[in-house]
Amino acid sequence: MITLYELAGSDPDLRFSPYCWRIRMALAHKGLHATTVAWRFHEKDRLPGAPGNARVPVLVDNGKVIAESANIALYLEDRYGNGPSLFGGPGGEVHARFVIAWADSILIPAMAPLVLPIVLPLLHPDDQAYFRRSREARLGATLETLRETREERLPALLASLAPLRRTLERQPFLGGDEPSYADYSVFGCFQWARCVGAPEILAPDDKLQSWLEEMLGLFDGLAAHARTAQA
Amino acid sequence: MITLYELAGSDPDLRFSPYCWRIRMALAHKGLHATTVAWRFHEKDRLPGAPGNARVPVLVDNGKVIAESANIALYLEDRYGNGPSLFGGPGGEVHARFVIAWADSILIPAMAPLVLPIVLPLLHPDDQAYFRRSREARLGATLETLRETREERLPALLASLAPLRRTLERQPFLGGDEPSYADYSVFGCFQWARCVGAPEILAPDDKLQSWLEEMLGLFDGLAAHARTAQA
Repeated sequence: MITLYELAGSDPDLRFSPYCWRIRMALAHKGLHATTVAWRFHEKDRLPGAPGNARVPVLVDNGKVIAESANIALYLEDRYGNGPSLFGGPGGEVHARFVIAWADSILIPAMAPLVLPIVLPLLHPDDQAYFRRSREARLGATLETLRETREERLPALLASLAPLRRTLERQPFLGGDEPSYADYSVFGCFQWARCVGAPEILAPDDKLQSWLEEMLGLFDGLAAHARTAQA
Repeated sequence: MITLYELAGSDPDLRFSPYCWRIRMALAHKGLHATTVAWRFHEKDRLPGAPGNARVPVLVDNGKVIAESANIALYLEDRYGNGPSLFGGPGGEVHARFVIAWADSILIPAMAPLVLPIVLPLLHPDDQAYFRRSREARLGATLETLRETREERLPALLASLAPLRRTLERQPFLGGDEPSYADYSVFGCFQWARCVGAPEILAPDDKLQSWLEEMLGLFDGLAAHARTAQA
């Protein structure tokens, strides 16, 4: 029995964390069923594992607790080695780390100013003060300022996608002919924006749309059917 | 018998092309010896292969001509499958493409304004007019302007290295415990700057220096011992 703790909004079915989406997709890739648990930032005591950990995803697999998406992905690959590989072997795993590092250090920071102002009102009331304080400190601007400067920031975000575009011109997925955890790492960021109802980042004729559609349709439309906030 | 056509400066032993360095390192990785041929931009007729091709590297392996670094790397991996793998298997190969795409679409464009003004006077006299015209058109500024705006551009370049730093905090090479073609693709860019004597991009205490030192020392210091221009 597998349990996945995921960040939720005020609506417990609204699950938008980019890191949690990586694991949702990874579990489906492995053909594993998990019970998901809605978690909010203020519910620190409800999270299993190391005391003081206040970040999701957290996975509990038959009593074993694993925190952080990267660790969880490696755990699933190791523990469920018979299922389809998340990385395509050891060579795939080490090279996929650069893709994950790019998503974490370039894509999420570039998307955050566009997404976080939309997230705030969707959060549980007891989460909002913490969220505003921590995110405004991290980004060095108020959420209102970030919202107002969206149009200025969009070109840099779109330019930062160049390596993604270039790779997907040569192969259908970052994982090659099939999606891998590298795809889920990047897709999680787009799903974050989508679930909270952020304005579209990609133009309708953007070549990345076809990859995004493929990702949304995987596993019987797991991501396509997720609860989204009303824009 | 393998021949590698490489871009050279006015000094035929000055070989600085980032794409050619990828293949130099890849050949050494495979334990292959190649005769290198100095080539300049104006020597279009001297380049084997498709007429009109005016880009290096070009590899000739027993009469077979392969152009473009990415194609050459795949050819070497396929043809010399008994040597150490450049990618760590098919999963490594597909995931390494993102690293190469990042080097091509982010790192080289970010470094070009810092490197190209230094390259110009090192080129063969018959190359300089073409080089200035084509590079200034590509970058939308004169080489003199680029040289003057170096200090303004450096912070963005250093920030763009975030995914490289983050990956190398977790493993010694992009290829894991051993360097792969992903490492050579990124290293080639640093070697480009180094060979032409561009001012240092990384601070002496930058954490990437240790990876760079490792790369310079590979294959008995192949890259460390390369001819460099006097700064």
